Amino acid sequence: MKLARCEYLGTGIFWAVVDVAQDQVTPISGEFNDWAPAVAAGRGISSVRLSGSSLPLSKVRLLPPIEPVNRVVVAGANYAKHLVEFGLSAPAQPVAFLKAYGALIGANDPIRFPPLTEELDHEVELVVVIGTPEIDLENPLACVLGYTVGNDVSARDLQRSGPAGIGMDLFAAKSQDQTTGLGPWIVTKDEFPAGSPRLRLTLKVNGEVRQDGSTGEMTWDVGQLIRFVQQRSSFAAGDVLFTGSPAGVGMGTGLFLKEGDVVEASVEGIGTLRNVVSKKNRA
Amino acid sequence: MKLARCEYLGTGIFWAVVDVAQDQVTPISGEFNDWAPAVAAGRGISSVRLSGSSLPLSKVRLLPPIEPVNRVVVAGANYAKHLVEFGLSAPAQPVAFLKAYGALIGANDPIRFPPLTEELDHEVELVVVIGTPEIDLENPLACVLGYTVGNDVSARDLQRSGPAGIGMDLFAAKSQDQTTGLGPWIVTKDEFPAGSPRLRLTLKVNGEVRQDGSTGEMTWDVGQLIRFVQQRSSFAAGDVLFTGSPAGVGMGTGLFLKEGDVVEASVEGIGTLRNVVSKKNRA
Repeated sequence: MKLARCEYLGTGIFWAVVDVAQDQVTPISGEFNDWAPAVAAGRGISSVRLSGSSLPLSKVRLLPPIEPVNRVVVAGANYAKHLVEFGLSAPAQPVAFLKAYGALIGANDPIRFPPLTEELDHEVELVVVIGTPEIDLENPLACVLGYTVGNDVSARDLQRSGPAGIGMDLFAAKSQDQTTGLGPWIVTKDEFPAGSPRLRLTLKVNGEVRQDGSTGEMTWDVGQLIRFVQQRSSFAAGDVLFTGSPAGVGMGTGLFLKEGDVVEASVEGIGTLRNVVSKKNRA
Repeated sequence: MKLARCEYLGTGIFWAVVDVAQDQVTPISGEFNDWAPAVAAGRGISSVRLSGSSLPLSKVRLLPPIEPVNRVVVAGANYAKHLVEFGLSAPAQPVAFLKAYGALIGANDPIRFPPLTEELDHEVELVVVIGTPEIDLENPLACVLGYTVGNDVSARDLQRSGPAGIGMDLFAAKSQDQTTGLGPWIVTKDEFPAGSPRLRLTLKVNGEVRQDGSTGEMTWDVGQLIRFVQQRSSFAAGDVLFTGSPAGVGMGTGLFLKEGDVVEASVEGIGTLRNVVSKKNRA
């Protein structure tokens, strides 16, 4: 099942079940917290109450599938080959940080070009959506509602601007307003084999492949990342977890994003974000 | 004017005007976003509509004065003498990061002792509360609703656990559930002289003074910090900004927090957080 958070003309924001073949979205009634735990528990479409009539998928705006009260947790340093691009060796444990909600954009929204950066870069990632209020550290995948696609767009020059001894400025690099693609929808966990997903990730710029990896290459799998984060700061239902990006980013190749670039981030079995880089605003 | 976010028995959560001398809180009607911009603009108590009867201050629970949808931004490395405690020299610019909302506790709540740490530490800080939806970079103090007190409780061993080359793990150190005191209330900006506040900060553990500084020692003042953050990731009304802590923390002295310690964090003209460190839970 595909679950999207949508906006339709002036009628507000709603969650919906998506049928891509039929080009339709059917609104779900009730709050995310009412139905998400049952979906995470595997009770499928019977756990959501559909309300109202369907709308054309092509007519709705796909929003990031996360509510403003939820948090965006990002786990980094999770693909060994990507670390080489930063001159880093593999760490002994994962690292996590928070991204501002205001950094998110939907699947077809423009990527804002932040005025402070000259080195805007892409990072395709598998993103986990948490569906339950409690996390079982012995069985961390039980809390997963499903998976979506993220493009953790990063300002590399700002990332390097952090003070010596404190480290990378991940806030400046990765919380810039309207830069991080998330979506197009959540594909529920039951559509994948049990365990941490092994899915191909690709990122294209103007049709040219820049990143091509597999979530099977992750140093720490989805369950290990959930446990790591949960022991440091508890998840709530609806929170999302970015799981790191494979090699091929501009930091390694020198090919940073430019105004007008068409950036397509895809995860096998989930979908594609297609975001165009805006003109740089000197505000 | 003092503004608190309160919980009273089973009657829910509300914002209120506090009268300490009369031991009373009077609920405010409407949403934070309805009245906060007018208060930030200096229109005083006439900008809030009081509703219902007053309650005894001593009978309400003081919650962190921030709503769950808002963000907690922390600026660090802002007191030169504190940096020496970490063996760091003064950086060329501030550094900021996000703290999880779930890390916050109210003025009289217990400090949870996170099971992963052996080095729990305190950091008294002046905290800025943003009151307007827009920030004027030329006049950043115009967006300030008021000030409150923070105790940015930190797990130092986790802070050092970040990967080499990436830096301090500020998420693990500073987003642990129910550790960071915030409150007891917001004192509106009109109660202080114009400009960045120059206020004494103190922190006591079991009555013994551990930190004693002044916000006048900050490397970057409140306006500079707001501008720095805003250029990296926009504020919303209701967001809070921690402004750094003066010298005297356990990282420098070796005196970390222990179960049962009474921790009192105060800022002159605002108030005191009084939080007791809980027993360590092996969960």
